[in-house]
Amino acid sequence: MTDYFSSHFKLGILGGGQLGKMLLTETRKFDIYTSVLDPSPNAPGQFACNDFAQGSLQDFDTVYNFGKKVDVLTFEIELINVEALERLEKEGVIVYPSSKTIKTIQNKAVQKLFYQDHNIPTAPFSRYAYVHEIDTALAHESLSFPFVWKSAQFGYDGKGVKVIKNYDDLKGLPEGECIVEEKVNFKNELAVIVARNPSGEIKTYPVVEMEFHPEANQVEYVICPARISDEVAKKARSVALKVSESFEHVGLLAVELFQTQDDEILVNEVAPRPHNSGHYSIEASYTSQFEQHLRAILDLPLGKTDSKAAGVMVNLVGAEGFEGEVTYKNIEEVLKMDGVTPHVYGKKTTRPFRKMGHITIVDASLDKARQVAQKVKSLIEVISK
Amino acid sequence: MTDYFSSHFKLGILGGGQLGKMLLTETRKFDIYTSVLDPSPNAPGQFACNDFAQGSLQDFDTVYNFGKKVDVLTFEIELINVEALERLEKEGVIVYPSSKTIKTIQNKAVQKLFYQDHNIPTAPFSRYAYVHEIDTALAHESLSFPFVWKSAQFGYDGKGVKVIKNYDDLKGLPEGECIVEEKVNFKNELAVIVARNPSGEIKTYPVVEMEFHPEANQVEYVICPARISDEVAKKARSVALKVSESFEHVGLLAVELFQTQDDEILVNEVAPRPHNSGHYSIEASYTSQFEQHLRAILDLPLGKTDSKAAGVMVNLVGAEGFEGEVTYKNIEEVLKMDGVTPHVYGKKTTRPFRKMGHITIVDASLDKARQVAQKVKSLIEVISK
Repeated sequence: MTDYFSSHFKLGILGGGQLGKMLLTETRKFDIYTSVLDPSPNAPGQFACNDFAQGSLQDFDTVYNFGKKVDVLTFEIELINVEALERLEKEGVIVYPSSKTIKTIQNKAVQKLFYQDHNIPTAPFSRYAYVHEIDTALAHESLSFPFVWKSAQFGYDGKGVKVIKNYDDLKGLPEGECIVEEKVNFKNELAVIVARNPSGEIKTYPVVEMEFHPEANQVEYVICPARISDEVAKKARSVALKVSESFEHVGLLAVELFQTQDDEILVNEVAPRPHNSGHYSIEASYTSQFEQHLRAILDLPLGKTDSKAAGVMVNLVGAEGFEGEVTYKNIEEVLKMDGVTPHVYGKKTTRPFRKMGHITIVDASLDKARQVAQKVKSLIEVISK
Repeated sequence: MTDYFSSHFKLGILGGGQLGKMLLTETRKFDIYTSVLDPSPNAPGQFACNDFAQGSLQDFDTVYNFGKKVDVLTFEIELINVEALERLEKEGVIVYPSSKTIKTIQNKAVQKLFYQDHNIPTAPFSRYAYVHEIDTALAHESLSFPFVWKSAQFGYDGKGVKVIKNYDDLKGLPEGECIVEEKVNFKNELAVIVARNPSGEIKTYPVVEMEFHPEANQVEYVICPARISDEVAKKARSVALKVSESFEHVGLLAVELFQTQDDEILVNEVAPRPHNSGHYSIEASYTSQFEQHLRAILDLPLGKTDSKAAGVMVNLVGAEGFEGEVTYKNIEEVLKMDGVTPHVYGKKTTRPFRKMGHITIVDASLDKARQVAQKVKSLIEVISK
């Protein structure tokens, strides 16, 4: 068996952004040797790894040559050269999550078809090779307003997703493969993080509830545990488990879900890595999602996923109207509050809606944590100097 | 006010051992720019800082030149060149804890006199410039067996401390200034960590209880909260507060205490920094001791010191009879247990009783955590390959 806790093992991480940085923090605790590849010379993750290499995550040779030097390869982002991962897998490098999972997830149409094939509940959808085919469908009345348009490729953080209410909304959509989804009339947006290791051990975290910023389409609060019935929570965890098992996924899988008005659970989409909806776990859970991802990809026993306290997470995103060298207004006021921990990602410049950090609020009482979170949110501002 | 959460501030840390490494982990969360000085090219802390410099912590020029480049200077160890700190303070570098505190603490005789001067309860003692003066005192019957001998300088991790029961035990003691202390007949060894910032805000952590390894004189379990009455806990926290206030200390102060058979609280000794007795706080407390030390020295508001769950810490020390490249036997068995987090410090080689890491066990029930800790302790072994 591999002795991860000594000096002859190397973990490679594609991407040294905020997720990579928080994952690296956990590797320090386990003293695991890490190499990071990131296109930016200012990548926040560069200071917590053993080796840092600057280079493109989407270039075959760069990813392949980087991967050849490590024992296990993982990533913090899905926008990576999957062909290089496939080649590395064939040549014996352990890649988790696997290239197969990423390929399915990277394309939203393929992802949706995967759910259908595995009897995983998801909103009805149609697939189009070109945006102009939507016009044809509307003309033939096989589609009607409103619906949700999603680009099949490269949709992150609210980009590549748009609610379409009329013909005007269709203007200016980028060409290319897309899906059109029924707009789900949901009570709640929920998420469940599932961890699975190569031995097949599998665990789910408690269900979290998400509140989105109405304009930016970014998560504003993540609340753990979700304020839903035990029955709905059980159903959500069971759907999420099924998704992870269907993928034969190794590592973390963040499963975003809709709770419909009828308390049905539908899978929205998944992310095969530590996820914004799990940041609360650093402070609130017995095992943080980052430690859990490491345990999973290294085939170590999975840690306890229960919470020590209730947690609410607030994203720190760049305020509108500010661009340039970042400063965190009122951060000291926020530090005065009990159970409040800011995480500053270390990006040098802010711009509107850019994810610059997050703040976790933990308390024995969820109501109290939620109240404090609101206060935090009303005080703190990510602006330029 | 200084904007710590942006890129123009530099924190210097003297020492990149396990404490420096854990402190650096917290600086990553706050994105604080850090420079580390350590004599070892293999210092565990070198991978979590922005700048690493190899050099002696006891050489005036090395420490002075390092300190001139930072805004705030702190340390993980007291064996440092205090004259350099004094000079830096005079020249406007902020040094916390201050050189004044370190000077008092570095010499155990001076430390004991400080307690006497400030009416802080401590065991009766005598001070000797040379070990042979102890013989004279015994001959004159102003001293009698048993007693505790402590070297005035450089006593760490059980070195420089010895229980003297007869003339034989006196043989081979190193020459030099020492103190001789009455052997306290204690019920418990306790510790309280106090945090204080330059604005005078002050907070104590809950009282922890320590169990020592009978031979190595190193802590085996640290238990939080200590299984003592509320009354004794209150007294212990109040004595610890008084110590920190008397020093006008800035940063963390770990106050080691004896609870006597009569439930009196006596100060044993202090450490002006994050401390082994506070490692449990990473997992169990709302604010870890390392985050708290940063908050204190940067004059930020102090965090909540309460616990989210009960915590028990087990030190991982090198097993007897093993020396060489380290391996952690049964660490995977330990990872299977709920609420168990290993911290591997990243020292390449083990030797008997060397501190190689620690394991924290957290649980809603202290009894459960203590039981699991015993199981952890019986399984894990730090050996060579």
